[in-house]
Amino acid sequence: MKVSAACLPCMVHRAYKETCYATQDQALRLKVMMEVARLLAREFKPDAVPAIVGTLRDRLIRELTGNPDPYKAVKEASNRAALGLRPKAEEYINSASSGRERFRRACLCAAVGNAVEFDILGHEFSLERLSELLAKAERDVAIDDVDAFYEAAKKARKILYLTDNAGEVAFDVLLVRELRALGPRVVVAVKARPCINDALMEDALAVGMD
Amino acid sequence: MKVSAACLPCMVHRAYKETCYATQDQALRLKVMMEVARLLAREFKPDAVPAIVGTLRDRLIRELTGNPDPYKAVKEASNRAALGLRPKAEEYINSASSGRERFRRACLCAAVGNAVEFDILGHEFSLERLSELLAKAERDVAIDDVDAFYEAAKKARKILYLTDNAGEVAFDVLLVRELRALGPRVVVAVKARPCINDALMEDALAVGMD
Repeated sequence: MKVSAACLPCMVHRAYKETCYATQDQALRLKVMMEVARLLAREFKPDAVPAIVGTLRDRLIRELTGNPDPYKAVKEASNRAALGLRPKAEEYINSASSGRERFRRACLCAAVGNAVEFDILGHEFSLERLSELLAKAERDVAIDDVDAFYEAAKKARKILYLTDNAGEVAFDVLLVRELRALGPRVVVAVKARPCINDALMEDALAVGMD
Repeated sequence: MKVSAACLPCMVHRAYKETCYATQDQALRLKVMMEVARLLAREFKPDAVPAIVGTLRDRLIRELTGNPDPYKAVKEASNRAALGLRPKAEEYINSASSGRERFRRACLCAAVGNAVEFDILGHEFSLERLSELLAKAERDVAIDDVDAFYEAAKKARKILYLTDNAGEVAFDVLLVRELRALGPRVVVAVKARPCINDALMEDALAVGMD
């Protein structure tokens, strides 16, 4: 994926959010944003790759603020919120009438977990809303490879499961459980070091992935 | 007003919005945003004044896109939306029981006109919503100098009225009408040249300021 004009406001917005998480010092925040502007003046060009520029930005923010993990509190809150919602998702999976349907529902739970931004959940996000999202996911899923995934998983000996963010990793637990029930050994990978709100080992353990 | 860290994402967001209004050419949009990043790397510093940096940004976008007035269509749409709502505001003013109350209500209309973003009005913004905002303005007005303004206007011979954006200029007409009814000559100033969505002479004429 290459950059487009729309990447710049998004990159700067994320930089600001991350800087605010990283430090409460207003003068330091301003200094960091000045350096972010300089970084983007150098790196934001037609052949730039957003993920690489984003990594340079995150590294800069961590270095300048001296905070090795700006999203730590956000990740912890996301895990807690996701764990609070998970029983509803388990209930949804457990009420399936066949193994194939269980598997399908676990996939939908993982997909919905990916769509929910647990760190910005307001009071209006309730268990009822999760149920609605699950029903909507069943209706609206655009690319549906679940059956092929189910067949492949049944034949597999070993599966590498790549996690994404904290919070949703709590929902990944449900799909990993179904995958293991089909036979294969499942290896779940998390990031080795902090990278925005990506799940680390501590997040996987916090949501019972082990 | 000096810059703070929060200014950078806002400046870049506005740059992006303005660039999208100015041109549909994706490659040119990217080029403009690259130049915006360079401009901000130079100009975004502790002693910078947001209004000056914003002006440099707007000038850059107009020059690079060759579009002298990126917000032209937005301003026209704002004027139309405001004119559609104005009869409700006039009704509110006309139902006042005294001259002083008429004046007060015209001030509140101008204030509410300033708060409404006419260019992003969705279908949910209705005449009823305007009535609610007017009632809310009467309750919530934080600094209330309307009485002193009324007395000063009654004694004035000449008043210079500075307009802000297109759209809300339609509501300014209502207050200018009340000011003139008190006696003074009222001179209404608009921007001489395009500056984001600020009202120009054409906007003042479109909403019947003359």
